[in-house]
Amino acid sequence: MSAVVASFFVDSGLTLSLVCAVLGLGFAFFLIRTILSSSAGNDRMKQIAAAIEEGAKAYLGRQVRSIAMIAVVLVILLAIFKDLPTAVGFLLGAVCSLTAGFIGMRIAVMANVRTAQGATESRKKALQAAFNGGAVTGLLVVGLALLSVGIFWLVMNKINPGKALSSLVGVALGASLISVFARLGGGIYTKAADVGADLVGKVESNLDEDDPRNPATIADNVGDNVGDCAGMAADVFETYAVSLIGAVLVGALTVGMGAPVIYPFVLGGLAIIASIIGIVYVNMTTAKPAAALMRGVLLSAVVSAVAFWPVTQSMFGEGLHVRDVMSGLEMSYSALGIYLAAIVGLVMTGAAVLITNYYTSTEYQPVRKIAEASITGHATNIIAGLAVGQQATALPVLCIGASIWLSYHFAGLYGIAVAVMAMLAMAGIIISLDAFGPITDNAGGIAVMSGLPKEVRAITDELDAVGNTMKAVTKGYAIASAGLAAIVLFGSYFVDLKHHLIEVRHIAETDLNTMLEFSLKDPKVIIGLFIGGLLPYLFSAFSMNAVGRAAGAVVTEVRRQLAARPGILKGEDTPEYGACVDIVTKAALREMIIPALLPVLVVVLVAAIPALGMVVLGGVLVGSIVTGLFMGISMTSSGGAWDNAKKYIEEGHHGGKGSEAHKASVTGDTVGDPYKDTSGPAINPMIKVVNIVAILIIPILF
Amino acid sequence: MSAVVASFFVDSGLTLSLVCAVLGLGFAFFLIRTILSSSAGNDRMKQIAAAIEEGAKAYLGRQVRSIAMIAVVLVILLAIFKDLPTAVGFLLGAVCSLTAGFIGMRIAVMANVRTAQGATESRKKALQAAFNGGAVTGLLVVGLALLSVGIFWLVMNKINPGKALSSLVGVALGASLISVFARLGGGIYTKAADVGADLVGKVESNLDEDDPRNPATIADNVGDNVGDCAGMAADVFETYAVSLIGAVLVGALTVGMGAPVIYPFVLGGLAIIASIIGIVYVNMTTAKPAAALMRGVLLSAVVSAVAFWPVTQSMFGEGLHVRDVMSGLEMSYSALGIYLAAIVGLVMTGAAVLITNYYTSTEYQPVRKIAEASITGHATNIIAGLAVGQQATALPVLCIGASIWLSYHFAGLYGIAVAVMAMLAMAGIIISLDAFGPITDNAGGIAVMSGLPKEVRAITDELDAVGNTMKAVTKGYAIASAGLAAIVLFGSYFVDLKHHLIEVRHIAETDLNTMLEFSLKDPKVIIGLFIGGLLPYLFSAFSMNAVGRAAGAVVTEVRRQLAARPGILKGEDTPEYGACVDIVTKAALREMIIPALLPVLVVVLVAAIPALGMVVLGGVLVGSIVTGLFMGISMTSSGGAWDNAKKYIEEGHHGGKGSEAHKASVTGDTVGDPYKDTSGPAINPMIKVVNIVAILIIPILF
Repeated sequence: MSAVVASFFVDSGLTLSLVCAVLGLGFAFFLIRTILSSSAGNDRMKQIAAAIEEGAKAYLGRQVRSIAMIAVVLVILLAIFKDLPTAVGFLLGAVCSLTAGFIGMRIAVMANVRTAQGATESRKKALQAAFNGGAVTGLLVVGLALLSVGIFWLVMNKINPGKALSSLVGVALGASLISVFARLGGGIYTKAADVGADLVGKVESNLDEDDPRNPATIADNVGDNVGDCAGMAADVFETYAVSLIGAVLVGALTVGMGAPVIYPFVLGGLAIIASIIGIVYVNMTTAKPAAALMRGVLLSAVVSAVAFWPVTQSMFGEGLHVRDVMSGLEMSYSALGIYLAAIVGLVMTGAAVLITNYYTSTEYQPVRKIAEASITGHATNIIAGLAVGQQATALPVLCIGASIWLSYHFAGLYGIAVAVMAMLAMAGIIISLDAFGPITDNAGGIAVMSGLPKEVRAITDELDAVGNTMKAVTKGYAIASAGLAAIVLFGSYFVDLKHHLIEVRHIAETDLNTMLEFSLKDPKVIIGLFIGGLLPYLFSAFSMNAVGRAAGAVVTEVRRQLAARPGILKGEDTPEYGACVDIVTKAALREMIIPALLPVLVVVLVAAIPALGMVVLGGVLVGSIVTGLFMGISMTSSGGAWDNAKKYIEEGHHGGKGSEAHKASVTGDTVGDPYKDTSGPAINPMIKVVNIVAILIIPILF
Repeated sequence: MSAVVASFFVDSGLTLSLVCAVLGLGFAFFLIRTILSSSAGNDRMKQIAAAIEEGAKAYLGRQVRSIAMIAVVLVILLAIFKDLPTAVGFLLGAVCSLTAGFIGMRIAVMANVRTAQGATESRKKALQAAFNGGAVTGLLVVGLALLSVGIFWLVMNKINPGKALSSLVGVALGASLISVFARLGGGIYTKAADVGADLVGKVESNLDEDDPRNPATIADNVGDNVGDCAGMAADVFETYAVSLIGAVLVGALTVGMGAPVIYPFVLGGLAIIASIIGIVYVNMTTAKPAAALMRGVLLSAVVSAVAFWPVTQSMFGEGLHVRDVMSGLEMSYSALGIYLAAIVGLVMTGAAVLITNYYTSTEYQPVRKIAEASITGHATNIIAGLAVGQQATALPVLCIGASIWLSYHFAGLYGIAVAVMAMLAMAGIIISLDAFGPITDNAGGIAVMSGLPKEVRAITDELDAVGNTMKAVTKGYAIASAGLAAIVLFGSYFVDLKHHLIEVRHIAETDLNTMLEFSLKDPKVIIGLFIGGLLPYLFSAFSMNAVGRAAGAVVTEVRRQLAARPGILKGEDTPEYGACVDIVTKAALREMIIPALLPVLVVVLVAAIPALGMVVLGGVLVGSIVTGLFMGISMTSSGGAWDNAKKYIEEGHHGGKGSEAHKASVTGDTVGDPYKDTSGPAINPMIKVVNIVAILIIPILF
């Protein structure tokens, strides 16, 4: 009987998970209908929302064209140097990643204005509109990822099984690389517009946030949609797809086909159902916003944990017997072990959420200390924020370490892959939290620009503070999962490299043990760790500077408009919003190219230079994870904490709005902008690009 | 004939190097006499200098007592759990490190006032007084390090040869741990006083730097001496001693006694003579300050390079034949190879100096970009500075990678040790540059407080800008050398661990190759890298927060004094300088304990927890180097660049003093203070403590 069930899951698990994905998409469309059925407010609001939508669409359209040129070159290179299936996979990953971004943006501009309208009625209505907007994005992105990878895998296994695995790496690269572009381009756009608008608007002309007299205000609101919504959706698509592909790779390379390859899909499918349950709960509960969101996540995690057990037991009822690729030892893992590895992933998700929440919520010490430090000025605010970011790395990194240890203990490298997949399986509901932030932020903007009463802005502001924390939380989650996923990818690099050297270069396996020792005793590995460690630093320096330059362009344009038409500040003349949108668009697209291609170039260079080669490259992969993990966590935490320290002061503490402490907190918030929305989150896909490119070039260069 | 020469160097090389050390000390005393013979200015100047000296002595005295208690506990623990020779070595290292700090402080307070007096006569006189003050510190610290390690080694080899090596590790630990305390205590002191004085003085009461009406001004000037002079001297003593000991360890463990063990001492001895030549040149030349200092370093390096060759050739005329401990392969290295490894160290020194100079001097783009970014406000200044720091890591890290590759290629792990020693051999002249900065800074303070004419302050300000760059340069040098030295220490950890497991635990060598693979494929190694990578982050968070808290205490005290006695601000009443000195002293000593002990505790914990143990610990060592290197370089570079961006604006650019850009640049400078003078430089000795403690606990815990 149990064998029959097991064989059912192995044979039909993939189909089953695709069905779950379709269910998720169906529920998303149901939510869309619900959202659309609510009012989009008065004409002024619709007009502003349309302007924002237009700017966002224009940006994304141009971004697609810019990226498309690079993508076409890469597809051709892949088709020539690698093979056609990989090139096709790359194309699929790239297109889906762009689609995810588009979905994120479309849903957000639809939900923004309805959240603003909802806030005129009740806090509950506003929360629902914003959260359901996020939930739609979450379900669509996760469903898309599961469907695209799953169908591609099914099709490839039919038409060209020999290339199925390697072409899947192509999908991963397409997803990751496009995601780096989307994160960077969107991140530079949103923060250049934000910083630029703030510098002239708030500081020089004493305008409030989102004042319609500020020529950069539409660009600022467009930025929320293309950066925080579109960029984030592409990023999570990438994280999900790569985690899934990583788990399939490790399953196939170490164990072979069958249950281990199907299992990650099944986890993903089940978690979609669990996410729907969580989403329904948040819509039903009357708890406060932060509590409602947290409980929704918890409920989804518990439902997943319960659902995973019977499936795991039936698929791995006879255990898993493998020769561990890393240690070379024969190992046996039980169904319970594999299940526990999945639980590790779920718990790690909870830990990441709770820890980042602690460091970035206005409720706890870290943010309040930054607010207090603002009393003594700009500098102490910055010092306190930087220190919080550094401190915020400790617990997540220790948890990641513990997760690696435990999941490896329970089921070897495959266990780590399962933990990552379980962690990402929660993405459906987690993105709901993330998209929630920019949607409420935009809703606030629309409320102010369309002259809605102050109480409306108060509600959107309250939700916005929760949104800031949630945004930081999901970034912490993404980068933590990257820390785990990167190890899976390093494992895949090693296993793939070994296969390649044995089969193509005919090197004896015993020789390989010395050749591919990747030992810290080998100076080449240390050199690799240094070069890899450098990548996040350089990447971040480039992208921070890019924001600075693009923001400078915005400042110049705003000053030009205000000087040329003095009526703007008096409210007698309308600013040319389009000019600012145009300038930021061009600047963002120009500035994203170099940092996005940096990791690709460095990996190819290291692999191609004979004195460096495959051992140094191994070090590079791990080095980029080590410093990237710390930078990613510290930058996103600092940024979130600075933002909320400002919100905390604006609530009336330490002198409230307009006080010296408030000015200092605005400085911190502005510094935090590129930290948390440009450089920090882009490090996650960047680490992945480094690792995936390394896997891809094995057959080309070694 | 050549065999006779070789045997001469092997037999008497150590003695010869001790003679060089004594010559260095002799020249230092000659310089002291020269300095003392010049005028110490008028009575008011002497009075202020005496107040600063008194505060500095009082602080160091209390610091010694605080550290002594911890040191005594550690000596007892070492004597019980390890052995008496190690405990004695620890004591020697600790005492010498404290002595080095004391020397640095004494010389500085002597040179400060004479630099101020010199500036009343000519720029040349001021430069000479400041530089010679630095040179004395340099020669004394290097001479002390060479003498103490050399004599201890000679004596131990006579009375207990079996423990000579391990007790040398005790010396290293004593030096490093005390240096962490000195760097942290001094760093917290100097920056808390500086930030505190600035926050109330400059920002709230519109007082200039060093205005005698500011109650914290004496504390601020004391800080320069106890942090930048005493802390730095202890730090360089540690770096020098540990590099020397590391080279001796690697020589002895991999090759055995004889030439490889004596050679590092000889390099050190010869370089002292070369440093003296460089110092004489700087005193004779009429070039501009920055150029004079740079050429002095270059001259010393060239003289060293010339002097190293005949000695290397005669000591290693028959080459070096070893079984490489890391790879286990039989290797032969020629005298030329070993010489080239030493040259790599010298070139690396030059590269570190030039690169940091580029990123922190007012002459080049990075600092000017920060100055330009200050026009748009506090936030853009901070963003630009953070980006410069991140970018500034690239070239040094690539150079370190190249140095590792080359010196390993030329002479294996021993080659890396030789490169580090050659690099540190230049410390005599390099510290002259470092100490130059705080001496001129203090001279400026004395000039203002004693009411000397503005031209005098103009000269000290000009020298101060050069000093800022030089301070950053030497920190870049110290942390770069730490990157290399840490690899040598990791090598020593591995070799020592292997010996221990073979001899004490009777484990077969073949089994050890698997046990001690330290492979990136092993999740335990990755976990170790994460834990190790965390150390610099936590350490930095603790120390930045410590500065914030201590500065807060100063602010409160200054406000109290100004409120209680309104006559102070009018210049009718004298502030109680002593009260501020007292408060910072207590705060610094209280705050330094936890971060300083953090690395020791983490290493012992990792080693002691059975699930972690020796493999994870190996990862911890390397992990702390990887993130520590990047944090150290980026923090010291950002800090130096911010400081000089302020100086650049004060020279009259972008509106000059009092402009909005200037205010923004002051914020950057203040943020940079704990970055470059507390957390950043303390990471160097911290990395060493991690590595040395690991070596020390091998026989206790494994």
